[in-house]
Amino acid sequence: MSEYWSDGVAEIEPYVPGEQPRDQKYVKLNTNENPYPPSPKVLEAIKAAVDSSMRLYPDPTCEVLRTAIAARFSIPKTRIFMGNGSDEVLAFAFAAFLGHEEPLLCPDISYSFYPVYAKFFRLRCRTIAVKSDFSIPVDEFLIPNGGIVLANPNAPTGKFLPLDQIRRLLDYNLARKRVVLVDEAYVEFGGESASPLTAEYPNLLVVHTLSKSKSLAGLRVGFALGQEELIAGLERIKSSINSYTLDRLALAGATAAFADESYYRETRRKVLATRAWATERLEALGFIVLPSSANFVFISHKSLPAERIYAELKAKGILVRYFRKPRIDNYLRVSIGTDEEMKILIERLGEILG
Amino acid sequence: MSEYWSDGVAEIEPYVPGEQPRDQKYVKLNTNENPYPPSPKVLEAIKAAVDSSMRLYPDPTCEVLRTAIAARFSIPKTRIFMGNGSDEVLAFAFAAFLGHEEPLLCPDISYSFYPVYAKFFRLRCRTIAVKSDFSIPVDEFLIPNGGIVLANPNAPTGKFLPLDQIRRLLDYNLARKRVVLVDEAYVEFGGESASPLTAEYPNLLVVHTLSKSKSLAGLRVGFALGQEELIAGLERIKSSINSYTLDRLALAGATAAFADESYYRETRRKVLATRAWATERLEALGFIVLPSSANFVFISHKSLPAERIYAELKAKGILVRYFRKPRIDNYLRVSIGTDEEMKILIERLGEILG
Repeated sequence: MSEYWSDGVAEIEPYVPGEQPRDQKYVKLNTNENPYPPSPKVLEAIKAAVDSSMRLYPDPTCEVLRTAIAARFSIPKTRIFMGNGSDEVLAFAFAAFLGHEEPLLCPDISYSFYPVYAKFFRLRCRTIAVKSDFSIPVDEFLIPNGGIVLANPNAPTGKFLPLDQIRRLLDYNLARKRVVLVDEAYVEFGGESASPLTAEYPNLLVVHTLSKSKSLAGLRVGFALGQEELIAGLERIKSSINSYTLDRLALAGATAAFADESYYRETRRKVLATRAWATERLEALGFIVLPSSANFVFISHKSLPAERIYAELKAKGILVRYFRKPRIDNYLRVSIGTDEEMKILIERLGEILG
Repeated sequence: MSEYWSDGVAEIEPYVPGEQPRDQKYVKLNTNENPYPPSPKVLEAIKAAVDSSMRLYPDPTCEVLRTAIAARFSIPKTRIFMGNGSDEVLAFAFAAFLGHEEPLLCPDISYSFYPVYAKFFRLRCRTIAVKSDFSIPVDEFLIPNGGIVLANPNAPTGKFLPLDQIRRLLDYNLARKRVVLVDEAYVEFGGESASPLTAEYPNLLVVHTLSKSKSLAGLRVGFALGQEELIAGLERIKSSINSYTLDRLALAGATAAFADESYYRETRRKVLATRAWATERLEALGFIVLPSSANFVFISHKSLPAERIYAELKAKGILVRYFRKPRIDNYLRVSIGTDEEMKILIERLGEILG
């Protein structure tokens, strides 16, 4: 608390990201990074962009990158908004669409940045409790609202909500002119994207990131798909904060990532195979493993408390994510690493549980 | 206007950046980029960082970069806040410090993003008219306020306010626990930085960018210097929007930029020499040229309207900045390019005026 802060700044509750150890001595399974490097073509494209043109501002409209994404999703590039990671895109979407008299709705167990955005932009926010199996109680969202926010697949549970259920939310809110925001950070690891529904629903905004499936967490690129009215709303927010949020190298690398689909298909395949293998081994160790549609698993042990497992794994050089929060404080979120990393995890867990 | 937008989104007035032609066929003197490329060591450092670690999130605390900046400014690294360009840093500073009952104060002629931030964050804002010679009327700022914002040197005028005058603002506001925000985007081209005063004044925040003096507009790096209480306020805002605003390559390039001071001393010297030469030639063509402490000149012709000169220069392949705004609508802001670019400018102006 400082006397120099604006009124209200002491009350906001900033997001705390997962630990990012700088020495990298850990097996790092705590922030859902992809265990495989970006496509070599992406790295080449970035290197090729490192030249004297760095003295010039980047294209604030991200024209070339949006053209590449438009081709990938078969939509007009006018329906794409680019941001500095999907976190920034989400923040702008909260500001642009969720400020109404009725509260916005989001699940009580979901990405913990959502209530932070709501508090920061002074939006009324009501959480809806997920069911005991962590599935989304769609009926309970069908009430007057200032907008609905879902991660799909959800984090940290990994559960996917089928698109026919998303349609029910969209239909309800369409009649009331309210937005449904679907955060698809993990969709490429097992979900089905709602992106094609943007053609039908002017109230749908789908948010994507290149951090997970494109192995580019270090480059900071995210985007949103939606009809032009929504894109215009996001542009208004962006242009009230920072005209140039993506640098020249992020533009070059992200564009190249959309040109090497076969590379990323293969890394996804490997992540899913490892997830299947690791799930079996974790279950054999006495863990309950929620069925995951993401590049992580959400697990709970039948006898040993999650917080203790977290601490013992850290002591043994493995970082996983533990949330000291109601309902999930006996769970761990474990990112899917390489086969080798997951073997080390299983070994260490065997020692801890043994 | 859209029915899906949040209440108030239709009323905000987004910033419009200078034209960024993608084909680059123009002599581009409209957005104050440095005409010289970044240090070769910066480009090497970026290329060296393009590797498989791009799959990992960057360090959200920017530890290594802040250490480099701390050494350059001889201050503790705890007094440095990093952002995605100084525009983002300024936006966060407006939110963090300028929201009080009294209005924030800024000059009527200054960086046109300031009123945009104020409107977006719903801050009361009062503009103080600069004098007829565009100098800052310091006495008129010594009234109860929610914070004072100045660009120094000012944009688009290029005028520098000496530090003894900045001290008067700081002293007045210190007694009232209000912040003075000094935006020093252009200070390395002729001003004297207020940065050392941060040791004395807990109410001073000084904002810098690497876009101009470090020739890195394409990399998106800015930072603020201030005491720990102010830095903590900025961190709260950042962590309510986006945990990772600087990507791995921006961190690597910016760190290297602070290690090659001799290169940048030379490019600055060249810009200042060109500015002196161009000023003489512009005056010979009948322009009034405001004495500039920045990498641009603010000029007005005694007989031909600025808007017409702007349009004719554009038709001849030269972009300069024209602001259709009260008091400055007969001025042009012209970035200092290379000697060759400025010779082309002078030739074309000769044709237009001839």
